[in-house]
Amino acid sequence: MNKKVKEIAEIINGKVIGDGDIIITGISGIKEAKPGDLTFIANKKYKNLLYTTKASAIIVGPDINNNVNTTLIQVENPSIAFAKIMSLVGPEPITFPPGIHPTAIIGKNVIIGKDVSIQPYVVIEDYVKIGDGTVIGAGVYIGHYTEIGNNCLIYPKVIIRERIKIGNRVIIHPGTVIGGDGFGFATVKGVHHKIPQIGTVEIGNDVEIGSNVTIDRARFDKTYIGNGVKIDNLVQIAHNVYIGDNSIIVAQVGISGSTKIGKNVIVAGQAGIIGHITIGDNAIIGGKAGVTKNVPPNTHVTGFPAREKWEDMRFQAYMRKVPELIEKIKQLEEKIKKLENKD
Amino acid sequence: MNKKVKEIAEIINGKVIGDGDIIITGISGIKEAKPGDLTFIANKKYKNLLYTTKASAIIVGPDINNNVNTTLIQVENPSIAFAKIMSLVGPEPITFPPGIHPTAIIGKNVIIGKDVSIQPYVVIEDYVKIGDGTVIGAGVYIGHYTEIGNNCLIYPKVIIRERIKIGNRVIIHPGTVIGGDGFGFATVKGVHHKIPQIGTVEIGNDVEIGSNVTIDRARFDKTYIGNGVKIDNLVQIAHNVYIGDNSIIVAQVGISGSTKIGKNVIVAGQAGIIGHITIGDNAIIGGKAGVTKNVPPNTHVTGFPAREKWEDMRFQAYMRKVPELIEKIKQLEEKIKKLENKD
Amino acid sequence: MNKKVKEIAEIINGKVIGDGDIIITGISGIKEAKPGDLTFIANKKYKNLLYTTKASAIIVGPDINNNVNTTLIQVENPSIAFAKIMSLVGPEPITFPPGIHPTAIIGKNVIIGKDVSIQPYVVIEDYVKIGDGTVIGAGVYIGHYTEIGNNCLIYPKVIIRERIKIGNRVIIHPGTVIGGDGFGFATVKGVHHKIPQIGTVEIGNDVEIGSNVTIDRARFDKTYIGNGVKIDNLVQIAHNVYIGDNSIIVAQVGISGSTKIGKNVIVAGQAGIIGHITIGDNAIIGGKAGVTKNVPPNTHVTGFPAREKWEDMRFQAYMRKVPELIEKIKQLEEKIKKLENKD
Repeated sequence: MNKKVKEIAEIINGKVIGDGDIIITGISGIKEAKPGDLTFIANKKYKNLLYTTKASAIIVGPDINNNVNTTLIQVENPSIAFAKIMSLVGPEPITFPPGIHPTAIIGKNVIIGKDVSIQPYVVIEDYVKIGDGTVIGAGVYIGHYTEIGNNCLIYPKVIIRERIKIGNRVIIHPGTVIGGDGFGFATVKGVHHKIPQIGTVEIGNDVEIGSNVTIDRARFDKTYIGNGVKIDNLVQIAHNVYIGDNSIIVAQVGISGSTKIGKNVIVAGQAGIIGHITIGDNAIIGGKAGVTKNVPPNTHVTGFPAREKWEDMRFQAYMRKVPELIEKIKQLEEKIKKLENKD
Repeated sequence: MNKKVKEIAEIINGKVIGDGDIIITGISGIKEAKPGDLTFIANKKYKNLLYTTKASAIIVGPDINNNVNTTLIQVENPSIAFAKIMSLVGPEPITFPPGIHPTAIIGKNVIIGKDVSIQPYVVIEDYVKIGDGTVIGAGVYIGHYTEIGNNCLIYPKVIIRERIKIGNRVIIHPGTVIGGDGFGFATVKGVHHKIPQIGTVEIGNDVEIGSNVTIDRARFDKTYIGNGVKIDNLVQIAHNVYIGDNSIIVAQVGISGSTKIGKNVIVAGQAGIIGHITIGDNAIIGGKAGVTKNVPPNTHVTGFPAREKWEDMRFQAYMRKVPELIEKIKQLEEKIKKLENKD
Repeated sequence: MNKKVKEIAEIINGKVIGDGDIIITGISGIKEAKPGDLTFIANKKYKNLLYTTKASAIIVGPDINNNVNTTLIQVENPSIAFAKIMSLVGPEPITFPPGIHPTAIIGKNVIIGKDVSIQPYVVIEDYVKIGDGTVIGAGVYIGHYTEIGNNCLIYPKVIIRERIKIGNRVIIHPGTVIGGDGFGFATVKGVHHKIPQIGTVEIGNDVEIGSNVTIDRARFDKTYIGNGVKIDNLVQIAHNVYIGDNSIIVAQVGISGSTKIGKNVIVAGQAGIIGHITIGDNAIIGGKAGVTKNVPPNTHVTGFPAREKWEDMRFQAYMRKVPELIEKIKQLEEKIKKLENKD
């Protein structure tokens, strides 16, 4: 890259505060930046780095003004603005040109759209449908009757079993398994009999699913992932779970069977949610929380068992007072002894 | 489906309470059911839905009588009865006819039973033995000297390393790794030296293992999974773990090295068990529990550090009294001050 | 095996305490050992088994003397000594002779070193570099421009995406994904826009990575795994994480984005560490701990929220006193009532 700050500001529709003629030669994180670099700040945690970074210019949000020596580019959303510049200067993205590799094994009655790329050693079973512009990575397995929409990117070694429906512009990272049997048994005299899992999985548009995730097929009906949902790595989603539009599920979360997650919910890393409950729209589930009952909409819960965040914090504060209580009770006992002995 | 309630009752050996001539046209969960559907109730949580479901008939257990307007079919075990009907009306199950796909690579001295299906891009190393009627899914890897029993179903992309023994009727879901090296190092002056993991994994009959599970091979001797054990997705089983018959291990559980789990134990989701301890027969380990010491047989433990459930609940109840204690101590202090000032 | 104790002692540079002429015919764990077996003791937990084991000889550390009836071989480090004997008597290790399987698909401008083994159905994209003596297991995928060092062992179905750098003598177990996109979105009016992850992953020398692990590529710059780091199964390492040399990350741990782990750190199983913090050198993070702020060097933290171990233990001890406090307060109330009524 070799661009003036004011040229960059134009691309991202930003306002220059400082010297717009400085030449930018690279991009970087705010900590690692060196002279010539453009950086950005989105996480408040790094705000003090504004004053120490070696970057030559910083993309900032509307809340940061010119109290900084470094040249600023002020925009609405620094992350999105920076992402735009990143895609201009980053390494050329790897692309997979359309075409079906001769080693791909494709079943009967498979319908493949325009400009689809099917990479080596893919196995596609009978009656599968793949939409226009979709890339199926090396070694992917797609089961019978499954339908995948347009412009999806399915990374290598993803396994999608039979009768699954996947929307448009869905990204699935390597090693993820969609449509494994739900975990359901009926126990008779200590022996567990498998309950057939005859349902399916339906995934909306614009969903992104991380690596080595597991999303089980429903007992009947379907496990459902709404439009715009983003799922991180190593997440477990059990049978008949429903996840509303635009919810975010962070790494290593587990959601038990038949639980319904609302829209725009955030479930932070390693949280666990029991089965058969409802998490309301816009709720936030804290990291490592263990959710054992319904969470109302717009509610932030933390801890295990999870309660409202303010309640959990107050509870923790009370707990920290226990040593003091022990001390106080000792004092009271002594005072009372004195009073008793007086007589 | 188009069957009278009394015809269905006959199939599952049930007793009709209500109108046996009603026509059933589909099956469904009790919440989603519409007129014409058959449903069932196994989880008590849903009991009040008995009165609001739109289903035309409900399979129930012996504890529910005719206090309901909807027609009932009373059976011993509603889950198993419903499963039987499901397998009649569900979509035709996907099957893999016997035969070895020409792209499968099969080593020397491999013994393959009758009616075995070996799917595309399977790699089977030398001296492997595969029993009658077993299906090896696309892209599965089976290491040297490994033996797999009869009528197993190994889903795509499963990796089974060398010298593993797997029983009959075992189901392994996609992406699971059996027989990776145990995690063992000897540290000398801060540098970790690998300890060879020369043991193996032995898996009994009628075991089901979820997707993306990891079961490590033993340091020496073997990691053991008993008959009838059911393991959910993303579970970690370390080297030299022993799991007794018919135990259930729910998703994202981690069991550390050399720990012994008894028979008919239930380990709920995201629980963790440290190494070198024993969990007795019929024990229940609660979800997210962190087990740090032996658990006696027939014991239900919860929390972290895990203690007996009643103890944990009492402990939680005491904790909730702390705010009240703080208040009481304040009052006592005031009363004492009054008493002191009296004199 | 058929060797005298004194012959074995010579191999491992140990001192015989007892009868050096006893014949050893096998090796085993101390619990399972039978007459004729050699065993060892490294975990103090098993110390009392010294007196009950049926083994004919035991490898011990410098702290155990001849107070035992069984013949001992005293060495500096029993685990390493035993490992040496294990590799002599264990089953022949599985090896993969050099050569490129005809089914491997290898891109343009790929540089492959001497004595490399490339197994069936491997896919290697353009511009990849693979060092001497490295084994690439069946069905592995290696993305464009990725470089793998010498004498690495990449197990089947590992996925390594583009532009990754891996050092020498690195072992990666099956199903692991290196270089998946970091989990980064910029949210505008409830819709999550993907932030390009244009960075990479760099892995040092002598690293071992377990099965079904996920290590994400950086937003920019790199996610870094230092020399000698050992990572267990099902671990999640987010974008831009830095792990210092010789640290140990146990199974199912999650490390959030941009967190920096020092050297020789131990993170025990199922622990979670939030993003953007620093864990100092030689720190220990307890199993299931939830780390929410920086941890200084040489510090042992446990619990959730994690605090120093002694503090956490004291806190737990205080908590256990709460029932007693309730009792005491009751007594004080009664005493005060008496005092009040006296007047």
